[in-house]
Amino acid sequence: MSLNIAIVYGSVRSERKGIRVAKFLEKKIIQRGNNPSLIDPMEYSLPLLDKQFFETEKPSAKLKKLHNIFLNCDAVIVVSGEYNNSIPPALTNLMDYFYDEYEWKPSGIACYSSGNYAGVRAAMQLRAFLGELGMPSVRKIFSVPKVSESISDKGELISKELEKSSEQFLEQVEWYAQAVKDYKIKKGMLQA
Amino acid sequence: MSLNIAIVYGSVRSERKGIRVAKFLEKKIIQRGNNPSLIDPMEYSLPLLDKQFFETEKPSAKLKKLHNIFLNCDAVIVVSGEYNNSIPPALTNLMDYFYDEYEWKPSGIACYSSGNYAGVRAAMQLRAFLGELGMPSVRKIFSVPKVSESISDKGELISKELEKSSEQFLEQVEWYAQAVKDYKIKKGMLQA
Amino acid sequence: MSLNIAIVYGSVRSERKGIRVAKFLEKKIIQRGNNPSLIDPMEYSLPLLDKQFFETEKPSAKLKKLHNIFLNCDAVIVVSGEYNNSIPPALTNLMDYFYDEYEWKPSGIACYSSGNYAGVRAAMQLRAFLGELGMPSVRKIFSVPKVSESISDKGELISKELEKSSEQFLEQVEWYAQAVKDYKIKKGMLQA
Amino acid sequence: MSLNIAIVYGSVRSERKGIRVAKFLEKKIIQRGNNPSLIDPMEYSLPLLDKQFFETEKPSAKLKKLHNIFLNCDAVIVVSGEYNNSIPPALTNLMDYFYDEYEWKPSGIACYSSGNYAGVRAAMQLRAFLGELGMPSVRKIFSVPKVSESISDKGELISKELEKSSEQFLEQVEWYAQAVKDYKIKKGMLQA
Repeated sequence: MSLNIAIVYGSVRSERKGIRVAKFLEKKIIQRGNNPSLIDPMEYSLPLLDKQFFETEKPSAKLKKLHNIFLNCDAVIVVSGEYNNSIPPALTNLMDYFYDEYEWKPSGIACYSSGNYAGVRAAMQLRAFLGELGMPSVRKIFSVPKVSESISDKGELISKELEKSSEQFLEQVEWYAQAVKDYKIKKGMLQA
Repeated sequence: MSLNIAIVYGSVRSERKGIRVAKFLEKKIIQRGNNPSLIDPMEYSLPLLDKQFFETEKPSAKLKKLHNIFLNCDAVIVVSGEYNNSIPPALTNLMDYFYDEYEWKPSGIACYSSGNYAGVRAAMQLRAFLGELGMPSVRKIFSVPKVSESISDKGELISKELEKSSEQFLEQVEWYAQAVKDYKIKKGMLQA
Repeated sequence: MSLNIAIVYGSVRSERKGIRVAKFLEKKIIQRGNNPSLIDPMEYSLPLLDKQFFETEKPSAKLKKLHNIFLNCDAVIVVSGEYNNSIPPALTNLMDYFYDEYEWKPSGIACYSSGNYAGVRAAMQLRAFLGELGMPSVRKIFSVPKVSESISDKGELISKELEKSSEQFLEQVEWYAQAVKDYKIKKGMLQA
Repeated sequence: MSLNIAIVYGSVRSERKGIRVAKFLEKKIIQRGNNPSLIDPMEYSLPLLDKQFFETEKPSAKLKKLHNIFLNCDAVIVVSGEYNNSIPPALTNLMDYFYDEYEWKPSGIACYSSGNYAGVRAAMQLRAFLGELGMPSVRKIFSVPKVSESISDKGELISKELEKSSEQFLEQVEWYAQAVKDYKIKKGMLQA
């Protein structure tokens, strides 16, 4: 049985490049026989958080859609740039709308930059953020330096070095996701 | 000569409590003979960042006002809650619009929570964020646990224990701000 | 079948208090039907790291013992104080000797302080550290403020509020440990 | 008048490479007319911390020497590798012996790695660590990827790209150190 994997991208800038990383992972996940749901904050246009989903009396169709994606996924991958060595607010803002939806789901961190360091500093803050959301992140981080030169705007690899790294990353995410899913079924927390 | 101190508050939630901390510090700064500029993200309603101020062809009056506050201040104090152990996006989002404005200005971190730990985890991420913005933060962090019980909605102290802590905090911010200001004047980077 | 859980304590100070937290968790783990191995860095006296275990030609009996504990455990709990808002070096130093031993094992973070904030800042650095070691940490952090007033020197709870918190913490560690263990057996990575 | 700048190196491994970064900065500081004191933890052989300097009844000559270097310096530069995405324990351990000595002194972070990311994750933890020690770190981080290919074992640059980066780094450290020193003299905290 295939796994549902949400991919949350973290920028709404017109000239954003990291969407390439998200598209690449989306393709890869399909190739590997699983079901990605790419969440692009530009499509959701959520305002800076006032009320979380569970506090909202009449949530919008968009919020309900996100709620359902997170509720039904088996793992979450975040694709994060780095603004001032920190997590881009478009990413934390979208994810902060939800909480219980995430519980007992593993996560994976993909990070990128236009420069050499691939956003790994933001990735460390994400270890803390995702931990608190109940989604421990797997060891391997898929880190992409010089993103414009590494992946095309259609999400195809230019830098072949990233092939192996992305495979290891997705293997770890799938491994934890399947382990947790099996255990939930065993414990009656999830239907087979 | 008095110091210009910007206070940046980091929440736009209807039920936000940390605005009390910002108001308290605003009063304190006036009492101590300096000039605070309280920046409330609710008044500025900045969208999630697309272009930074310097990239914006025709910046709005609001953006220009922020630019001028940051350009002309001698120090910046951030007042931060903690969302999922991380910095609230309303805070990073507002500050990410600017960069050169901050250079060579000391900063201070105030943090708060409704619970016991006062937001100190977000404060650690702010050490990294403010460092990268060119605003090293002073040692003392003004941390306020149980904010609703500690400061009134008018910004007056209920918990007198915070009096001394806030004084030490502002002394350190002023100390660094004055040291840097004097040196800029000596070096011709600023007019006396 | 019971779980093997290593508990790594992180201080060698004569007047250390956090050993109370480690002893308390040790008892609790036994009560819950599992097998703790308490690792006290004072007993191991490892010098500041020169060579990791796998690089050491003739490892000492002590190093071999640690290697075996980590190799054979199903989860690792770290018990950490906070030195200057960071992880105590006695903790990182001991754990840095090993790497592959940790792979695919969940972890839990317990932190404490003599003051009010329970060491939660060090806990955030531990999210990053344990992630890189291949041991994603569970959401719940067992955090103990005012440690001397909360747990006796024999490891018995004085502050009954910590009872529920410790149960939730150990449940999460056991949950992930069992999920991962079952999956390893299913995949032939471990014998049943 | 020249500045006294302590350089604290953070590894005692036989095959350590970062000592090259420390030696390079030592030379540079001399060239720029200031006085470096290179602190190599291998020469001090401090055990894992039991008692801090101020708690020690009869401190060793080595501890006294360190105390005096920190007390009399105008700024501290740390040279840090990255162990498991975190600060090497040899660095925190040495620095944890002291506290008041550091007060009101700016700091600079130099980091390195054998790989591509130059230790920048440890640098973020150092922002927090140095902040708590009372030594806010300057914006610019001197980050050295592929250290063996970038600097010779005598501390000479192989990669000329690092020249400009090191100059900017030292300028910022000196700028803050001089600003703070001038202000201390003005306030009577230091003799001219």
